[in-house]
Amino acid sequence: AFYHVRPRQINDTVTKLLNSKNDPLIKNKDNIRNNDKILKLPRGTRDYHPNQMKIREEVFSTIINCFQQHGANTIDTPIMELITLLKEKYGEDAKLIYELKEQDEDESLALRYDLTVPLARYISQNKISAMKRYHIGKVYRRDSPKMTRGRYREFYQCDFDIVGAYDAMVPDAECVKIIAEILDKLALEQYKININHRKLLDAIFTVCGVPDKLFRSLSSTIDKLDKIPWDIVRNEMINEKGLLPETADRIWGYVQMHGNADLINQLRNDSQLTSQKLAIEALNDLELLFRYLALFNVTDKIVFNLKLARGLDYYTGVIFEAVLTQYQYNPQLDDDQIAVGSIAGGGRYDELVQKLDPKQRYVPCIGLSIGVERIFAIKEHQLTESKIQSKIISTEIYVASAEKNFLEERMKLCTYLWENGFKTEMAYKRNPKLLDQLQYCEKNQIELCIIIGSSELHDGTIKMRNVMTREESIIPREQLAEQLRNHLIKVRQRLTENKQQ
Amino acid sequence: AFYHVRPRQINDTVTKLLNSKNDPLIKNKDNIRNNDKILKLPRGTRDYHPNQMKIREEVFSTIINCFQQHGANTIDTPIMELITLLKEKYGEDAKLIYELKEQDEDESLALRYDLTVPLARYISQNKISAMKRYHIGKVYRRDSPKMTRGRYREFYQCDFDIVGAYDAMVPDAECVKIIAEILDKLALEQYKININHRKLLDAIFTVCGVPDKLFRSLSSTIDKLDKIPWDIVRNEMINEKGLLPETADRIWGYVQMHGNADLINQLRNDSQLTSQKLAIEALNDLELLFRYLALFNVTDKIVFNLKLARGLDYYTGVIFEAVLTQYQYNPQLDDDQIAVGSIAGGGRYDELVQKLDPKQRYVPCIGLSIGVERIFAIKEHQLTESKIQSKIISTEIYVASAEKNFLEERMKLCTYLWENGFKTEMAYKRNPKLLDQLQYCEKNQIELCIIIGSSELHDGTIKMRNVMTREESIIPREQLAEQLRNHLIKVRQRLTENKQQ
Repeated sequence: AFYHVRPRQINDTVTKLLNSKNDPLIKNKDNIRNNDKILKLPRGTRDYHPNQMKIREEVFSTIINCFQQHGANTIDTPIMELITLLKEKYGEDAKLIYELKEQDEDESLALRYDLTVPLARYISQNKISAMKRYHIGKVYRRDSPKMTRGRYREFYQCDFDIVGAYDAMVPDAECVKIIAEILDKLALEQYKININHRKLLDAIFTVCGVPDKLFRSLSSTIDKLDKIPWDIVRNEMINEKGLLPETADRIWGYVQMHGNADLINQLRNDSQLTSQKLAIEALNDLELLFRYLALFNVTDKIVFNLKLARGLDYYTGVIFEAVLTQYQYNPQLDDDQIAVGSIAGGGRYDELVQKLDPKQRYVPCIGLSIGVERIFAIKEHQLTESKIQSKIISTEIYVASAEKNFLEERMKLCTYLWENGFKTEMAYKRNPKLLDQLQYCEKNQIELCIIIGSSELHDGTIKMRNVMTREESIIPREQLAEQLRNHLIKVRQRLTENKQQ
Repeated sequence: AFYHVRPRQINDTVTKLLNSKNDPLIKNKDNIRNNDKILKLPRGTRDYHPNQMKIREEVFSTIINCFQQHGANTIDTPIMELITLLKEKYGEDAKLIYELKEQDEDESLALRYDLTVPLARYISQNKISAMKRYHIGKVYRRDSPKMTRGRYREFYQCDFDIVGAYDAMVPDAECVKIIAEILDKLALEQYKININHRKLLDAIFTVCGVPDKLFRSLSSTIDKLDKIPWDIVRNEMINEKGLLPETADRIWGYVQMHGNADLINQLRNDSQLTSQKLAIEALNDLELLFRYLALFNVTDKIVFNLKLARGLDYYTGVIFEAVLTQYQYNPQLDDDQIAVGSIAGGGRYDELVQKLDPKQRYVPCIGLSIGVERIFAIKEHQLTESKIQSKIISTEIYVASAEKNFLEERMKLCTYLWENGFKTEMAYKRNPKLLDQLQYCEKNQIELCIIIGSSELHDGTIKMRNVMTREESIIPREQLAEQLRNHLIKVRQRLTENKQQ
């Protein structure tokens, strides 16, 4: 057969063809006109291509493994909820909720905005008083998409929450610990975890002379300080919220403060602040929290940062947010260069379940959320930079033939290999070219290719080709499964060794 | 300590407490009134509780493993698409599409109805000519929910599609093979896979005197024969579609036929039918398909069934549907008892991409979809019947103490165990009762409990308890990780042996 005569030329040709072809998946992402109709995605949404799915699944697997390491189980809830549940939970952001059209029925539905309010509904409806659960799912916000920064209108949240009444700061410390563990395992470069307390912010607002009714909306304003410079935030406080300039400046005096656990003692000496019961409660909480975080070995990552406010209304205690230090807010950079920033966050929300529970049952909760879209963006960038072609499909054995009319023999071999648990493929053409078959193996990093022809059929053998080394050997048909298993182990060992070098 | 004195009593009490408590998760699923607001789920949707998630993940893992065994990669697309893409793709079912409210913008969006039309959009937009991909995701149909039958408005589809122009019936045979493999691996009792061909149905319609424009809508009518008796379908054909009674009866003469590959030859002798080019094409396809299915070892599951029509408009060639024979349509049963029935299906849709592609690019496709919600329902039922309590959380080691003021020691131990990769939990209370801690371990089937107290702290040891056997031993602190690893292996071996007995 042709193949036996010129193996070297074939190898060269395969290499040449491989280099000349690009992945058709990446070629064209532009929107295309179909007559007058445009074929495009909804604004702020994306497809995940196979190479991106590979990254996504690796990131999810790391995160899930860590959540499970801390004893969480998992639940799922529908992507839509009754609008009545979602209303009045998100403060100024409620305008970003996607509503569904009402059709024939009286149910008004909306897409979920986060996984926290659905969890509160789940806790109340199922009368749960204690639970540790994680939930990975898509949420929807009709926001201005900044897709280069990993901000979409449809995006994943990975949440871990501890539900139940326990002793102070024990679950809180574990949530911060989990964020640190996940970011360490994902190897995302330098990060820090900012920590603050909603009660401390409220005490500061009181001391500075802010009226009670502005507390929550002012938290949203303070929260912008990681994206917007102080003078603009100050203007918003004065012109939109109606604060006196001196009130704004007193707030600025506090929220600039940041440091380690020593800052707690410094604040204890502020007699005006400590005249507030809420401030004492917050400082006691934080002192305990920092103590526990030391036992959990994460002190070096922690910053007590009074600027941290978190946007959402429902937080009531400790709040935290992880930031990649490389991508922190810098007024010198333009908007696109800010790129990522906050990558995980969360806090205590002790009153959310009570607010919607029919019997006002009090079920304190704390939770964290990992911003995986931003992590995907970083990982995709890292992979592109590294120029490593990672293996996408799982196929380990390819069944090929160099001769005509071997389709049915290839089918029989595939059946045998599938039944023996091998991840196996063959060409869908009756008489494919050997070159095309070998090229497919190399392009997709399939470990072994087995080749059958009339001489092999006559001898009761199979030719086996190691795709990477291009070495070939002959195997008796009756030893096929066993020998393939052994060879796969060897090939994988060699691949692992190569990577380590 | 209390614990050292009376271990047996403690064991008895733990057992008693465990038996008296039910899982709070399953207790109450009723909707609850909150003042005038009702706390409930959208119609036709469900939450997945942790025990149901366990089943779901096992089913997905079996299916994904099989899809990967056949060389597929995976993609993801947004849950919403432009309405213009979804219109005119689903025939009479288009009224079931969920639309989103338009807000401020000109984009009209709807929730996806299946994963096939989004795939066609993906293929066209990315100019793909060949691909083998699976996609697991939720789809949305505003249907009358029959939740006892596993029919929801939000439900999962697990799709596998082969995209590209290949030789006849090679991908088609693999799709049928994959359905058989998955149903075998899921061990769902007896099933059969009905096979038919859209071109054969069209030829039959022509021969019986049906006008061309009724072909697609008549396929939907025929498709109801697995749920509705013939006399009702006949009335619909005559009164709604306007067929002559003799036309309807001639169709009935054909669609009653079913059998094995021999039926192909029988139909070849029907000279009226074989005067139709489409019939010849269909019979040639089916002959080849049955031949390939024999090579794939699935002949015993296959029925050539002329009643199979599939509801959706876009099929153009071979169609197939797997049915659990135990749950097949039986006119004697009332609606709820039909329970499950069709559990997987699919077919060839060669013109869908061409219809929406701006350059009318012809990209033939074939795909299959697994009806996992029905599979979940069966698996949940099987598990309830078996009364086996399966382990839900992954925790393998629990850190406990019998004494007061050991919270910080427990925290340090947890940190050590987390850093060594153990799935570890501890109580969140400062001074939990030992009984509560041991009860938590038994209820959640945690393999090992390690107990620390002042004597252990003094001696530099840890007490380790095998939760299942309640055997205890003392381990030196410096051998902790190593000994725990060894004990976990032993405990798991014993559990596996117990299961096999």
